[in-house]
Amino acid sequence: MTLDTVLSRIDSDLGSAVDRLLELLRIPSISTDPAYRPDCARAADWLVNDLRGLGFEASSRPTPGHPMVVAHGGSGGTHVLFYGHYDVQPVDPLSLWHRDPFDPALEDTAKGKVIRARGASDDKGQLMTFIEACRAFVAENGALPCKITIFLEGEEESGSPSLVPFLRDNAAELAADVALICDTDLFDADTPAITTMLRGLLGQEVTIHAASKDLHSGMYGGPAMNPIRVLSNICANLHDDMGRVTIPDFYEGVPDLSDDLRAQWEALGFDGAAYLAEVGLSVPAGERDKTVLEQIWARPTAEVNGIAGGYAGEGFKTVLPAQASAKISFRLVGTQDPLKIRENFQKWVQAQLPADCSASFKDHGAGPASVMATSNPAFEAARTALSDEWPNPAAYTGSGGSIPVAGYFKTILDMDSMLIGFALEDDSIHSPNEKYDLRSFHKGIRSWARILNALS
Amino acid sequence: MTLDTVLSRIDSDLGSAVDRLLELLRIPSISTDPAYRPDCARAADWLVNDLRGLGFEASSRPTPGHPMVVAHGGSGGTHVLFYGHYDVQPVDPLSLWHRDPFDPALEDTAKGKVIRARGASDDKGQLMTFIEACRAFVAENGALPCKITIFLEGEEESGSPSLVPFLRDNAAELAADVALICDTDLFDADTPAITTMLRGLLGQEVTIHAASKDLHSGMYGGPAMNPIRVLSNICANLHDDMGRVTIPDFYEGVPDLSDDLRAQWEALGFDGAAYLAEVGLSVPAGERDKTVLEQIWARPTAEVNGIAGGYAGEGFKTVLPAQASAKISFRLVGTQDPLKIRENFQKWVQAQLPADCSASFKDHGAGPASVMATSNPAFEAARTALSDEWPNPAAYTGSGGSIPVAGYFKTILDMDSMLIGFALEDDSIHSPNEKYDLRSFHKGIRSWARILNALS
Repeated sequence: MTLDTVLSRIDSDLGSAVDRLLELLRIPSISTDPAYRPDCARAADWLVNDLRGLGFEASSRPTPGHPMVVAHGGSGGTHVLFYGHYDVQPVDPLSLWHRDPFDPALEDTAKGKVIRARGASDDKGQLMTFIEACRAFVAENGALPCKITIFLEGEEESGSPSLVPFLRDNAAELAADVALICDTDLFDADTPAITTMLRGLLGQEVTIHAASKDLHSGMYGGPAMNPIRVLSNICANLHDDMGRVTIPDFYEGVPDLSDDLRAQWEALGFDGAAYLAEVGLSVPAGERDKTVLEQIWARPTAEVNGIAGGYAGEGFKTVLPAQASAKISFRLVGTQDPLKIRENFQKWVQAQLPADCSASFKDHGAGPASVMATSNPAFEAARTALSDEWPNPAAYTGSGGSIPVAGYFKTILDMDSMLIGFALEDDSIHSPNEKYDLRSFHKGIRSWARILNALS
Repeated sequence: MTLDTVLSRIDSDLGSAVDRLLELLRIPSISTDPAYRPDCARAADWLVNDLRGLGFEASSRPTPGHPMVVAHGGSGGTHVLFYGHYDVQPVDPLSLWHRDPFDPALEDTAKGKVIRARGASDDKGQLMTFIEACRAFVAENGALPCKITIFLEGEEESGSPSLVPFLRDNAAELAADVALICDTDLFDADTPAITTMLRGLLGQEVTIHAASKDLHSGMYGGPAMNPIRVLSNICANLHDDMGRVTIPDFYEGVPDLSDDLRAQWEALGFDGAAYLAEVGLSVPAGERDKTVLEQIWARPTAEVNGIAGGYAGEGFKTVLPAQASAKISFRLVGTQDPLKIRENFQKWVQAQLPADCSASFKDHGAGPASVMATSNPAFEAARTALSDEWPNPAAYTGSGGSIPVAGYFKTILDMDSMLIGFALEDDSIHSPNEKYDLRSFHKGIRSWARILNALS
């Protein structure tokens, strides 16, 4: 049977696969630092060269920033677009690394073998799981199992400035049946996940203005309205006693959790108490009738991310400030409309202003939630394939944060994404001593082989 | 009659009095800047020398900072302690001055002649009104009208670090029947005031702690308690719908306004609407059943003078901060006990903390209100004397701010203070182009002559 021989090939070739990854990890492709610009180009070229060796028609495409790698290969089956990124985070503080971050090595640890280097997990190790799976198919069958487009970015760690224009300019070339994004974690070491719900994000800054200038609280304390008081009231009114957001129509478009998803999430055995305990908390602060997991993955939020007004330096200053401001963000789910919520929020603030006060607003990002159409049969096929590889069955999960590329694939390429990754929370991505478990790498390659086989 | 000849002498000697003031104004006695340390000493010596010329036993007393000037003279009558300060504010921005701030001159303006210089109003011009009144008595009568101690500070504009130790160390020498402090304004250009009520000030910093570290609002937004939310609630709860402070027992010791004082204040014709309009406001924000003047002079307040939490820089950061803090000040009146209020405030905050949150406090200053015993006959004598000099009768007024020296005279020297000054709101003290009206200077000298005569 084809899959079995491919999996065996993966097992026997693991040493060489690790060597190839180490070679890629030696290239310090730090995208945010202009000093490493040639290294980013070198990493892209290394990948183009490797993909050409597997029969892909591959090229490094220039952008105003770092190049994109695009490769086409295979035919038949489901046409997949695979996304990963070859750029890495800076390494400082270097003194906290126990080895040169760009001199990668396989290390023995109490928890097993790990690949230690900047980018081992985020995202070079992850993207190579897919390429190695392709290699095993080519080696065993002489061909890729289905039509595959590979799209590797070099600016993910520096804000992806070229991503949207590139997707727009190359939409026809990049279109596929479904996207595979490999830049996320396993649910836990034994449980794979396909992230299908990503919360959206709306950012809004509000400034309350009162007197025409800062006042002295001896001269004006009492009769002069203090904008900090007004702003505090507004921030305090954002939630009711049940932890629900009070802005009118805020919950429009927030779906109920399906029974199927609820069952999958319950089966995950997520320990909400332990999750909170890790950061010194014990009582979930969100909607009272929702579990911690629901609060993060499936419910919208309103949070003040920053507040400032008056004197905040050392000591004391008895000032009544002329203004005070807050940065408020909303995490969105389902079909909540960010622009509608922005409008409702502003009206809601205006309605609460006392005499002599005005509000001004500064708009920050406004992105809706991404909810994948799991009715696409590729999703169930991938879930079964993952469940076959790992000790525990795979689940459709949510993500409290936003992964912009998945949103762009939807809005620009009209394509759902399966976010499948094999990283672990303790991989120390963005931190010193980043690692990727050899087990993640090995079973990651095998996972993609199973998924590609299922989609072929 | 003695007073009339003294007043005539003051009128005829005005030119020389101005010349003497200009001489003192030429000394750049900026107390906060160590570069001007010798100038501060020089100003003190100039005053000692001038006072000795009037027959005072005067000396410049060293302190760890700038010297104090102490002078004793006269005998009989009410023993008064006169307070003023010879140090001045820095002059920057120098470019906004239309003449060298230490090259004083008499200038003609649309509103009459003014003495233009740093310190002209605050406080050299004011303190010289008293000395010139003494000079006129000595010139006409050969003696001071009563027992007078003069006490001039050189650190008022730099936090008065030596004041309390000096008062403690020299309490017996400085004790008198009543203090005269000349560092305040007229009520308006035609209406003198004796400030008899100074609000106290309690400063309190509160920090709300939630998670053990800053969290990402994608990962934790929802289940993690946001300390900004908690702090906003606390700040919002400080006042009820009537504008009253909600901390338990807060109004303990807040006296009702006496009918006499209410009548005096009504007679002042204070225009609360105009006062607020000047800073862009129209509706008094304090206790709804009190006038603007009462809110400033006779009622306590709670104000958030600073609030800070999370990210307040450019752009947006979706952080759930580990802590948020506010600087809150309370203006106090009557016999409100600052330490009791601090304690009650802290308990009140603790009682509002949700699960997983704690509060830490940083104590700032805690000074009670100063309420002078106007039953002391010196007060009515001074009020009548002032009423004789100015177009409108004098009133006992309050002050929304604190003038610490008056508090120290009470607590350390057990002495009430009459705060009588002739400055005007448009004198630009602490600002470029400071001035003192020649009329303030002239009628100020005459006012002291009348008051000293009444107390003799």
